[in-house]
Amino acid sequence: MTLRIALDAMGGELGPEEMVSGAIQAVEESDLDVVLTGDETILNRLLQEQSPSTTRLHIIHASQIVSMDESPFEAIRKKKDSSIARAFDLVKNGDADGVVSAGNSGATMASAIKSLGRLEKIARPGIASIFPTLKKPLVMMDVGANVDCRPQHLFQFGVMGAAFSDNLFQIKRPSIGLLSIGEEGGKGNVLVKNAHELFSKSSLNFIGNVEGRDIFQGDVDVIVCDGFVGNVCLKVSEGLAEAIISMLRTEMSKSIMAKMGYLLARKAFGNFGKRVDYAEYGGAPLLGVNGTGIVCHGRSNAKATKNAIKVAAEMIRSKVNDHIVQILSESEQVQAEEGQQDNGAAMNPGDTE
Amino acid sequence: MTLRIALDAMGGELGPEEMVSGAIQAVEESDLDVVLTGDETILNRLLQEQSPSTTRLHIIHASQIVSMDESPFEAIRKKKDSSIARAFDLVKNGDADGVVSAGNSGATMASAIKSLGRLEKIARPGIASIFPTLKKPLVMMDVGANVDCRPQHLFQFGVMGAAFSDNLFQIKRPSIGLLSIGEEGGKGNVLVKNAHELFSKSSLNFIGNVEGRDIFQGDVDVIVCDGFVGNVCLKVSEGLAEAIISMLRTEMSKSIMAKMGYLLARKAFGNFGKRVDYAEYGGAPLLGVNGTGIVCHGRSNAKATKNAIKVAAEMIRSKVNDHIVQILSESEQVQAEEGQQDNGAAMNPGDTE
Repeated sequence: MTLRIALDAMGGELGPEEMVSGAIQAVEESDLDVVLTGDETILNRLLQEQSPSTTRLHIIHASQIVSMDESPFEAIRKKKDSSIARAFDLVKNGDADGVVSAGNSGATMASAIKSLGRLEKIARPGIASIFPTLKKPLVMMDVGANVDCRPQHLFQFGVMGAAFSDNLFQIKRPSIGLLSIGEEGGKGNVLVKNAHELFSKSSLNFIGNVEGRDIFQGDVDVIVCDGFVGNVCLKVSEGLAEAIISMLRTEMSKSIMAKMGYLLARKAFGNFGKRVDYAEYGGAPLLGVNGTGIVCHGRSNAKATKNAIKVAAEMIRSKVNDHIVQILSESEQVQAEEGQQDNGAAMNPGDTE
Repeated sequence: MTLRIALDAMGGELGPEEMVSGAIQAVEESDLDVVLTGDETILNRLLQEQSPSTTRLHIIHASQIVSMDESPFEAIRKKKDSSIARAFDLVKNGDADGVVSAGNSGATMASAIKSLGRLEKIARPGIASIFPTLKKPLVMMDVGANVDCRPQHLFQFGVMGAAFSDNLFQIKRPSIGLLSIGEEGGKGNVLVKNAHELFSKSSLNFIGNVEGRDIFQGDVDVIVCDGFVGNVCLKVSEGLAEAIISMLRTEMSKSIMAKMGYLLARKAFGNFGKRVDYAEYGGAPLLGVNGTGIVCHGRSNAKATKNAIKVAAEMIRSKVNDHIVQILSESEQVQAEEGQQDNGAAMNPGDTE
């Protein structure tokens, strides 16, 4: 079956040109159909200019655009004909299988929940992010959708992140770490301490607390945190990576020797850039929604857009959502059995395997 | 008057050798006295080995050591003769003017509060950290002492950070940003939204929310956050900087060309390393304590220790604590006057200048 991905073609800070180019590349490199939602005059013109050799690109008109700093709830209430809303409507009506948007991520999440609803038993859908590390990609959740959380929410983020890591990166029983400020279970704020107890009692492959510096080592597969902390981590990482590159460039332009060195090592810099480029990973999946959605970085270019479209298709094909529901139900069963056995006292997670 | 700094010579992961070397360097480069607290047999031997040409180094015996992962409250209750406790006792008894420790930072904070108490009206002392940025050093507070905070605590972190930034970096009316996940005042979690209101009503130079990526740009002087978020930021930054350097080294060793390039650009790498080296800044000041204390990174070497000793002296000379009390009292006056004028409604911070 050919999958059809709806792309919010008006989202993102670089304009619809990049979105359209990304869509064309995705279609040319795969068997996917892509539906562009947005201003049909603009989109038709852009398609004509680039004249792709494919019939697998479609346009659905949307008269409104949600701006980047607009309140998500205002946006879904007042802009029912936005390019984001139209994209999710297509999925709701069975005319598309998933959505990609580089627009307002809060509005994208709100539209997703409004149109598609939540997965069974999921209290709070969230946004997962894929971090590059020294070893393998890491899934971090939540990175911005839920700024004030309860322990149960963090637990479900762990379940969702694990299902994604397993299905997309083929990591069996992914290890789950809880982001805290000390490795011992007693370290952290009240939220994290209580979430630690929930994870410890579960059948998940929970490895305990991890710290900020563990993110980039690549020794853990899924890191769980609330959306405030996760979003701060994401933006600190982006800001620092940019600052380091900028400082290195400055230092390297200060002498002829260093300049020559830079020229000789240029390819190494390029490879490095590729390893830390968010465009390689495409975007951040919305998990917990009863459907498939990907939010991309606001500055997504054609390549990031293309990759996000492919990841959306991969999420649908690998049935991530079924897996989430399955792990959650298994983990509830274990919790219920434990409750009967020992009245809820903490067990060694290894014992439950 | 000669200042005397007490150094917890048993703290830190690199052993007392580095502490003793740092103390010797500090004394040789300044007119300070340094008192080393710790095992006198070990410290006497180390001093003899390095035979410094100074009489401004002293040893006070302490029979116990607080380990890095020990509970701070257990440590101060059970280890009254630890090198940390002895250092603060010296200050309490007027035999030293400030303390530097690279040991257990929680225990250092707990000892400081126990021996010296809090500054007038300060609810929660905290740990400030100095971040390198593309422009000037940034003060971030709190970075680990207070993991669950109320809005008033964040407000006081801003006051303390501003006093430190003014006195140590000569920045008049330092700009204060509140770390959040969106620039608008309405963005963030409940804690941050409420703190935003407090700052907006104050006479401080509050510039509103800032985001994680603003940390390294150097456009804001003080960033305020709770100790959980601050500590995560600190460790994410350390971990990412290390990962980037490691990735670049790997890429640069992959070809002869890149290797030659690295050799030519070596000095640039060195300069870069210096810019991001925490040892340049020495350590993180404890602010809000009725006295002077600096906690250093656990992996502090002699240079970091030396610099921390100098920063401690600078904090004492510049009377940071007097400044904190003064700003806090001024800001309370403004709050009280506003309360009378408009019954507490939010004013434009610009209006109060």
